[in-house]
Amino acid sequence: MAFDLGVLHKDDHELGVAESLKLSAFYIFIAILFGGYIWWAWQNGTLVTSDGTNPVASYFQGYIIEKVLSIDNVFVISLIFGYFAIPRKYQYRALVWGIIGVIILRGIMIAVGAELISNYAWVTLVFAAFLALTEADIQPWLDKRKPGQNKFTTQRKEPDEVRILSGVFQGNTTGTPIQLMIENTDQRSKDYGDIAGAFRPGHADITYHQKYGIRDYRGGGRSSARETASRVAAGGVARAALAALVPGLRITGYMVQMGVKGIDRSRFDAGEIERNPFWVPDAVAAVEWAEYLDALRLSHNSVGAVIEVVAEGVPPGLGAPLYGKLDSDLASAMMSINAVKGVEIGEGMASAALTGVENADEIRMGSGGPEFLSNHAGGILGGISTGQPVVCRFAVKPTSSILTPRQTITQGGQDTDLITKGRHDPCVGIRAVPVGEAMMACVILDHLLLDRGQTGGVRGRIG
Amino acid sequence: MAFDLGVLHKDDHELGVAESLKLSAFYIFIAILFGGYIWWAWQNGTLVTSDGTNPVASYFQGYIIEKVLSIDNVFVISLIFGYFAIPRKYQYRALVWGIIGVIILRGIMIAVGAELISNYAWVTLVFAAFLALTEADIQPWLDKRKPGQNKFTTQRKEPDEVRILSGVFQGNTTGTPIQLMIENTDQRSKDYGDIAGAFRPGHADITYHQKYGIRDYRGGGRSSARETASRVAAGGVARAALAALVPGLRITGYMVQMGVKGIDRSRFDAGEIERNPFWVPDAVAAVEWAEYLDALRLSHNSVGAVIEVVAEGVPPGLGAPLYGKLDSDLASAMMSINAVKGVEIGEGMASAALTGVENADEIRMGSGGPEFLSNHAGGILGGISTGQPVVCRFAVKPTSSILTPRQTITQGGQDTDLITKGRHDPCVGIRAVPVGEAMMACVILDHLLLDRGQTGGVRGRIG
Repeated sequence: MAFDLGVLHKDDHELGVAESLKLSAFYIFIAILFGGYIWWAWQNGTLVTSDGTNPVASYFQGYIIEKVLSIDNVFVISLIFGYFAIPRKYQYRALVWGIIGVIILRGIMIAVGAELISNYAWVTLVFAAFLALTEADIQPWLDKRKPGQNKFTTQRKEPDEVRILSGVFQGNTTGTPIQLMIENTDQRSKDYGDIAGAFRPGHADITYHQKYGIRDYRGGGRSSARETASRVAAGGVARAALAALVPGLRITGYMVQMGVKGIDRSRFDAGEIERNPFWVPDAVAAVEWAEYLDALRLSHNSVGAVIEVVAEGVPPGLGAPLYGKLDSDLASAMMSINAVKGVEIGEGMASAALTGVENADEIRMGSGGPEFLSNHAGGILGGISTGQPVVCRFAVKPTSSILTPRQTITQGGQDTDLITKGRHDPCVGIRAVPVGEAMMACVILDHLLLDRGQTGGVRGRIG
Repeated sequence: MAFDLGVLHKDDHELGVAESLKLSAFYIFIAILFGGYIWWAWQNGTLVTSDGTNPVASYFQGYIIEKVLSIDNVFVISLIFGYFAIPRKYQYRALVWGIIGVIILRGIMIAVGAELISNYAWVTLVFAAFLALTEADIQPWLDKRKPGQNKFTTQRKEPDEVRILSGVFQGNTTGTPIQLMIENTDQRSKDYGDIAGAFRPGHADITYHQKYGIRDYRGGGRSSARETASRVAAGGVARAALAALVPGLRITGYMVQMGVKGIDRSRFDAGEIERNPFWVPDAVAAVEWAEYLDALRLSHNSVGAVIEVVAEGVPPGLGAPLYGKLDSDLASAMMSINAVKGVEIGEGMASAALTGVENADEIRMGSGGPEFLSNHAGGILGGISTGQPVVCRFAVKPTSSILTPRQTITQGGQDTDLITKGRHDPCVGIRAVPVGEAMMACVILDHLLLDRGQTGGVRGRIG
């Protein structure tokens, strides 16, 4: 995915010379302190512990992997500049203790969890500078997912206003990490009082408790559908990047099934998607579904859904033969969305019932290149995009929080019955539509950049 | 997955003190050479390029991330020991140039793609030493996948004999990477002559060509079902590790659908799975399917399949709330298998049609802990295992290589018709059963080790 905690330290690399010089003075001062300590420890024999292991080496094996290096070019620059700032007589000595000291300092900093620069968060984009980006590029997608827009979604009112905290300067991305923030304004922890001691069936309560032995019961936390706001925000940034890189690319999500009700593909009308609360491309279905969901909601029940996300204009060649297959990454991304239980590419599970003769997407030469006569493959062959629309579907299970009592147990191990109050979606699949679109945008952007890195975007010639 | 190229450098950490001392002499010698060069370059002003960027910093930003550190503890040990091996007068000087030089040396080594130790291959296990392992632990699983066992699979004869090349000493794993090798003995490149210039519909031929501009047409290569032998071998090692770590864990794969023919779950008989060529747990279906597939094969056609893989005895608590969800990783692993177009957990796509009342897996307190009254979730809630069986299904599309002519184009852009000769499976889904089992084993082992790392395997108390 295009947002990744793994690049947290990226902008350590972007520090300028002036900043580096300032840091170097600080580093060398601290370095001398720690250098002195390490020298003393060495002399006293405490550097090698009783079992013969070397704690310095242990630091390197464990904590420092990946983390230290992010700051090491600052450190090298500092040492080079620092070298000339010191009287000749002390130059070598300062450098040696400087280097050893900084290494120790960094080890300790990481060991105690301290970070030099701590204002990063979860959305870290990997593309270059000079992408025009403002909150207005992200907000429309969040508005689409926003709760409380009609009676078919949770009645919680969240403005879901996104703020760009870093990584954008004078309306352009700077190439450094982009931090976005969306505040929660309408949480009601008291709604969750009843479930403090009992596990809601179908929820992650019991698995979180079993894994961690503690859980914050004031809402679903990371298992809450609220978490998907961050995915949609990331998707907004990915879409802005895709618009700049592949102007013809279009990502569209819509519902194709709610509960036992499917759509009639012969009535498919893309224009209808934005006109009903279900994002369903079938006007007749929209009316039927409203009635169906109303009845379920009033009977204190909920229902599942299938969402289809199509990306048109995806260039051929995105993906890889084995590790990093485009379909494998899409499956991972879609399955990672809360409540998703199945993912399909192209014909999906139905491909099992097809014969090889039926399933072959035959090819003819068109004026602009190869043209496929069908798209059973969903735009992906051998893990790599064909240039046809990428078609992905996923199933969202029914909302687990319902007002009908269900059997469960308490944390103390007592049998009990539980109804889940609070303001929950009768069909959480509805709000999953923009989430699925966002994940598609993130995965495609990621693969577009990976492909550009490997091939420079050059395609094999046909004809 | 448990096999991962990312741990290539792991055993750099395992070098002992004697080895380190030897290396240190070599390093310091080379370091002085490179130190001299860098000093000269600095004096000549070539260290800062015309656009003001610093090539040393660039090295750090690009190549060295992750890679250098794997050897850095050797380097630190070397410097400390080296320090005392040198006359006092030169100690500081040698250290300074040693450090700078080693950094440059490593940068150049990585830049030119040279690796210090190069005898690793694709199967790299992440668990500790002292797991008893021989070829006999892996071979049975490969035999299960082996081609040519009956008329329903490819008639290619491959013994699929696995050899352990490294990582095992005196019958035990050493903790270092395990390299396995399986030789191809029955390839016939001439079978592929006709497809040298044309793209087989439904195959990766066209996407490989578009991405890379070149393709090895003497077989499917990495998109061939042959690639799955390596997955099964890795799965064999993972199973051996799982058997040692969680003795009660059992992974079973079987077919539940072939083409339009499903199984009757009321006739489910696990004992039947090994008794028929389809790994189908339904004796009646096995007879029907044989007739059905024979007819398809003789009419030069092929068909898809659905495989179900169940892991029983999986401890609760495996997985994570957001990044690294167990279901997300399973979806990624299964979708990465050749020809897979859909992945389901528990109810899968069918969960869309369920109501919240139906879908809730109710819980009662049993004598040994929580007991679920159903398993719609497929053993995973919020990305974390519940302790119930983990149930995963995936759909395999029909074999694309068929003897019925299909329309396609040549590399030169001419329309043509193509039949694909060679010895191909009429239902490649059959041999996907052990592959799915292998991927399940790899994913569960991975999550077991991740969980042990984070929680020490301690579970939250209930009751």
